[in-house]
Amino acid sequence: MTKQPHILITNDDGIHAPGIRHLWNSIRQHAKVTVVAPISEQSAVGLSITIRTPLRIEKVIWESGSHDTWSVTGTPTDCIKLALRAILDQKPDMIISGINRGSNIGRGVLYSGTVAATIESVLQGIPAIAFSCHDYNVEPDYPTLSKYIYPIIQQIIKHPLPKGTLLNVNFPESKLAPFKGVKVTAQGNEWWGEDPDKRIHPSEGHSYYWLGAKLHQDEGEEGESAWLRRGYVTAVPVHVGDLTDRDHMESMKELFESNLEAAITN
Amino acid sequence: MTKQPHILITNDDGIHAPGIRHLWNSIRQHAKVTVVAPISEQSAVGLSITIRTPLRIEKVIWESGSHDTWSVTGTPTDCIKLALRAILDQKPDMIISGINRGSNIGRGVLYSGTVAATIESVLQGIPAIAFSCHDYNVEPDYPTLSKYIYPIIQQIIKHPLPKGTLLNVNFPESKLAPFKGVKVTAQGNEWWGEDPDKRIHPSEGHSYYWLGAKLHQDEGEEGESAWLRRGYVTAVPVHVGDLTDRDHMESMKELFESNLEAAITN
Repeated sequence: MTKQPHILITNDDGIHAPGIRHLWNSIRQHAKVTVVAPISEQSAVGLSITIRTPLRIEKVIWESGSHDTWSVTGTPTDCIKLALRAILDQKPDMIISGINRGSNIGRGVLYSGTVAATIESVLQGIPAIAFSCHDYNVEPDYPTLSKYIYPIIQQIIKHPLPKGTLLNVNFPESKLAPFKGVKVTAQGNEWWGEDPDKRIHPSEGHSYYWLGAKLHQDEGEEGESAWLRRGYVTAVPVHVGDLTDRDHMESMKELFESNLEAAITN
Repeated sequence: MTKQPHILITNDDGIHAPGIRHLWNSIRQHAKVTVVAPISEQSAVGLSITIRTPLRIEKVIWESGSHDTWSVTGTPTDCIKLALRAILDQKPDMIISGINRGSNIGRGVLYSGTVAATIESVLQGIPAIAFSCHDYNVEPDYPTLSKYIYPIIQQIIKHPLPKGTLLNVNFPESKLAPFKGVKVTAQGNEWWGEDPDKRIHPSEGHSYYWLGAKLHQDEGEEGESAWLRRGYVTAVPVHVGDLTDRDHMESMKELFESNLEAAITN
């Protein structure tokens, strides 16, 4: 029998969110699990890190026997960084983030704290999977989603993704269960648009804004949201590495290396 | 004579930082300029957006005659979103972010608030340039850097970058001036590693951590830091779009679409 893998879990909804507890429950029979998650909700913080204020790490007791559970007064990326450099003695075999309430699809991967934790992980050379659900009910049907968690992790343990690639998994709305299966697909064109709402402070009289967010669906038949609507669990291999636009380097060299000097007087 | 371009400027060091004032000074003779910048420093916040607290927008007077200067109690990305949807009547022709004190090179583009503002811009279809300097002195020699600003902007106005591509410009240390020219290069492998420093609270007695950050240089001769050390201004065309790892989609389909079902009991 092989040694149990060591899995670090985090999220961006905060350590008290039900999604992370279900994530933990769905893997703790199969793995040694350490939980390091933000003490408060950190949605849409992207890869934000906390460098101007200090961070506290505190032990959290979920139930007797759970000794490897920690809260951090920072972002999901702070959690990964502190877990690896201040909490754990050894690198974990994998890092899992979620289960996020609300999907992280399309361009949302760049803004999501849930996905950011997995970007940080693969940049540090550790395989990672983000789990989110396209469901905005107060309590998605986590037991149904949980059935998928460890089988997906197992496949990635057996067949590691290349360096710099994470797996971004989204579940359909719970009411579509039983789900039709897993669909490996490309990142869709979904994006969140702001929708500012101007209000007036009740006593001070000044204006303020709620930024607002409205999900714009991918219009295509192959977008992530299209598969989610059809009842498929979507899995997108997301690569974060060199973002250079190499197709345009040559034309840029001409513009900037040869033709700019005359305009600049040193 | 052609109409002056309308340029929106922001930063992540905050509206009171000297870098943004120099940016403004270096373009206001050539363009209609609107400034919308964070009221406080927002370094390393990445694409973080503020959705759980309201945001205030306030007019800032830099000097008599500067009427288009606004502070926002949020992140650089919040600034772009509110500028486009709550402050400006029309889309600007370009968005400029900086001048950041400290470079944004290598993987730092994913964490930087300065660069995030330009990522948000190109995702919204507006050309954008980030300016930072590889200089950690309290006051880099901004007048020297400023000479490069408008000539670079002009080239991008005349020869627009493709959709989804921004230009990430970094200046060498001021002491290396006069600079050797502009070098168009690929994103380097530089990265910031955390370096946590554990301390004890003076009265409460509990521990806390400073996350810490240490720049790891690219070892190669072609990395951004190598060119900066040689006295070149670096310019990297950075593309943010579909991050799908298409090379691995077929093998993933096999793992997840065909071979996972047996492990899952709906």
